[in-house]
Amino acid sequence: MLFHLYIEINLPPDMPEEKANDLRARETAQVQQYQREGKWPQMWRVAGRYANISIVDCADADELHRLVSALPLFPYITTTVTPLARHPARL
Amino acid sequence: MLFHLYIEINLPPDMPEEKANDLRARETAQVQQYQREGKWPQMWRVAGRYANISIVDCADADELHRLVSALPLFPYITTTVTPLARHPARL
Amino acid sequence: MLFHLYIEINLPPDMPEEKANDLRARETAQVQQYQREGKWPQMWRVAGRYANISIVDCADADELHRLVSALPLFPYITTTVTPLARHPARL
Amino acid sequence: MLFHLYIEINLPPDMPEEKANDLRARETAQVQQYQREGKWPQMWRVAGRYANISIVDCADADELHRLVSALPLFPYITTTVTPLARHPARL
Amino acid sequence: MLFHLYIEINLPPDMPEEKANDLRARETAQVQQYQREGKWPQMWRVAGRYANISIVDCADADELHRLVSALPLFPYITTTVTPLARHPARL
Amino acid sequence: MLFHLYIEINLPPDMPEEKANDLRARETAQVQQYQREGKWPQMWRVAGRYANISIVDCADADELHRLVSALPLFPYITTTVTPLARHPARL
Amino acid sequence: MLFHLYIEINLPPDMPEEKANDLRARETAQVQQYQREGKWPQMWRVAGRYANISIVDCADADELHRLVSALPLFPYITTTVTPLARHPARL
Amino acid sequence: MLFHLYIEINLPPDMPEEKANDLRARETAQVQQYQREGKWPQMWRVAGRYANISIVDCADADELHRLVSALPLFPYITTTVTPLARHPARL
Amino acid sequence: MLFHLYIEINLPPDMPEEKANDLRARETAQVQQYQREGKWPQMWRVAGRYANISIVDCADADELHRLVSALPLFPYITTTVTPLARHPARL
Amino acid sequence: MLFHLYIEINLPPDMPEEKANDLRARETAQVQQYQREGKWPQMWRVAGRYANISIVDCADADELHRLVSALPLFPYITTTVTPLARHPARL
Repeated sequence: MLFHLYIEINLPPDMPEEKANDLRARETAQVQQYQREGKWPQMWRVAGRYANISIVDCADADELHRLVSALPLFPYITTTVTPLARHPARL
Repeated sequence: MLFHLYIEINLPPDMPEEKANDLRARETAQVQQYQREGKWPQMWRVAGRYANISIVDCADADELHRLVSALPLFPYITTTVTPLARHPARL
Repeated sequence: MLFHLYIEINLPPDMPEEKANDLRARETAQVQQYQREGKWPQMWRVAGRYANISIVDCADADELHRLVSALPLFPYITTTVTPLARHPARL
Repeated sequence: MLFHLYIEINLPPDMPEEKANDLRARETAQVQQYQREGKWPQMWRVAGRYANISIVDCADADELHRLVSALPLFPYITTTVTPLARHPARL
Repeated sequence: MLFHLYIEINLPPDMPEEKANDLRARETAQVQQYQREGKWPQMWRVAGRYANISIVDCADADELHRLVSALPLFPYITTTVTPLARHPARL
Repeated sequence: MLFHLYIEINLPPDMPEEKANDLRARETAQVQQYQREGKWPQMWRVAGRYANISIVDCADADELHRLVSALPLFPYITTTVTPLARHPARL
Repeated sequence: MLFHLYIEINLPPDMPEEKANDLRARETAQVQQYQREGKWPQMWRVAGRYANISIVDCADADELHRLVSALPLFPYITTTVTPLARHPARL
Repeated sequence: MLFHLYIEINLPPDMPEEKANDLRARETAQVQQYQREGKWPQMWRVAGRYANISIVDCADADELHRLVSALPLFPYITTTVTPLARHPARL
Repeated sequence: MLFHLYIEINLPPDMPEEKANDLRARETAQVQQYQREGKWPQMWRVAGRYANISIVDCADADELHRLVSALPLFPYITTTVTPLARHPARL
Repeated sequence: MLFHLYIEINLPPDMPEEKANDLRARETAQVQQYQREGKWPQMWRVAGRYANISIVDCADADELHRLVSALPLFPYITTTVTPLARHPARL
């Protein structure tokens, strides 16, 4: 089942650069593993903002929550989830 | 999978009473059929408003959309859907 | 270039069924033509609502506006456009 | 009487891990005691967020406030309360 | 138990004067009956608006919904309900 | 003249317990003095939140501002003021 | 006592021109009478909108409501009232 | 002086095509006259919406209001005005 | 030209009292100088809040921005500016 | 292609003056380089606020995001991006 995620990231501007870099590197690794597993098939940067739009493909809301809450940046993000259905005009 | 629905209903106040009654009767019948099928296990009236909160249990977002868009009142409602995951402190 | 579109549709509930059906049929035809041209690669129904999320691929904002404003349902929709950039963690 | 609660949790990201774990453990214990007493019959995690939706069953608003304000996480939560009435179409 | 109600009234400006007057007269009668029964102990006009703030005293949300939905103006109002608890500093 | 106040309180969660208790004790004393003077005739806790709804009775907006800005918690509160008029249906 | 009013006007675009002109003429007459009585000392047009900002001077909220609800455009306006206190830095 | 205008247009979908075309033609003529007079130097379509962003150059708020309220579409638009100052980093 | 300003002030509650007093004293001095120059003819306290409403009279948006950004409290305020035009019903 | 940017800046008030000045100087230099390259043709200060409105001209959303995220103030700003199309009434 597909979910649409709008993720806004708020890192405190006074976080030490080293910690921020480490968090971002681990976030990238985690999200790329989800991509390889086919769970996170699409993802874009919202132009001009520190925010992302993703399409996530997983069994249900329990798996979705496991994926998102395991992200290293989870304590710093706000996520809005929209469940997606097939569109009747989709070829 | 469980979805939380907040449904606000806006019938035009000048709709003929007969049409409104017919719509409401068919809405009740439809929702009670969903209850008998185990798809719509819970549902409350938001006190003081023409609005409802429901817990719907269905396979995925496609089925959810089929259920909601088949409601006779669908053209008159605004629905906000929240996917629900198991809470870790739930006994 | 990719644009993310959130489209909310508001058909007046008292529109004659025949007119609504005609509008919807022409909308479907138009959107399917855009899909065949590769301009409208993705599109989902927002579960429980008369609303869609789409990814549109076109040259620039001028082409985007031509595509959207030529939709038969254009007078009845509200569109929110978000320009999408490549995400650095995208494989 | 039933109340619907939407609870958003905001722990400061720089809270020491030990303190956060202690708070969460005591929160779980408290909420499970409420469940055993039949006061907090339902509760779900909002998928993708650090937020919950609950159905609480208590005598009145005084008891509701006692239950919520005694939660160890009370200083870190925002609660939206909706009083629930019986729905006429409920079987 | 006490509930706080914010009620906004929207009569269509083109409603015939006679119908509006009749609705308002029946609304007044109904609300005054609630006052005599001790169910609706307080009520003010929000200065400058066609809106009211009330304190309603009833057994639970079911009774509250019965009172509000029986108002002749119910199809024209938007109600926001806030459950009230005793304040610890209240003498 | 009557004013309706919605007061939301935001104490920083890291305020030392002793300081918070002192503030709250002085707040209670101040508000109880206002009650004895007949200036603050009613006041409820918004169930589930650290917020209050009050009815304040004073000469004019100058006196209202003096009362509210002299509260020990004034630097930590957000107040929304609604001037109240007599309701024509009030018995 | 002074009140600050933000008034937004929404005349239905299909109101017959004659009726709209009559309403506006009576509105002007009424508001100019209030000015002559010293009740409505200031009033500006919000540039670019069919909206006004006014400073009204009257005894209390009851008088304020009488003034505003007697305006011929009352059924078509939305008013936001802010009670004003003396500013300590005002010379 | 420069003003930034965000203009949202809402033509009723059931307005006769002839009337809508006439309104739009007169709107275009009016806005092009403002352009020739140097009063309305810039103007773009918000991609995907029936909305515009403009930079208007006029003496003051009185002239701004005269320009905007003389537009044939004025009864159908919502305008948000932002006064613009010179930016210190502007070359 | 006249501008309407709504100014909300947010001093951090943990700012040392001495610094806050110094800021407020310099703010008062600055605003009183503007009053003597005829630039800031009116100003009220929003009752119950740490907020002000002002009418400022200056040449254009450049001067307005110079006045506001030179206020000692500028880093702590949020300002909403509304340009004012003459009202046709103003005597 | 043109993008409209609304940028709100939030420097923490307790940032050391030296650091803030350095950030602002580098921001100015960066934005002036963008102007010289023709990428950032217009830019105004929103009067009364620490905010800007800009028109940015670049190839696509990828370039837009590179420009904005390279600004020294990027961690302190909130950007709202609106893609602009040609307006049919533009001379």
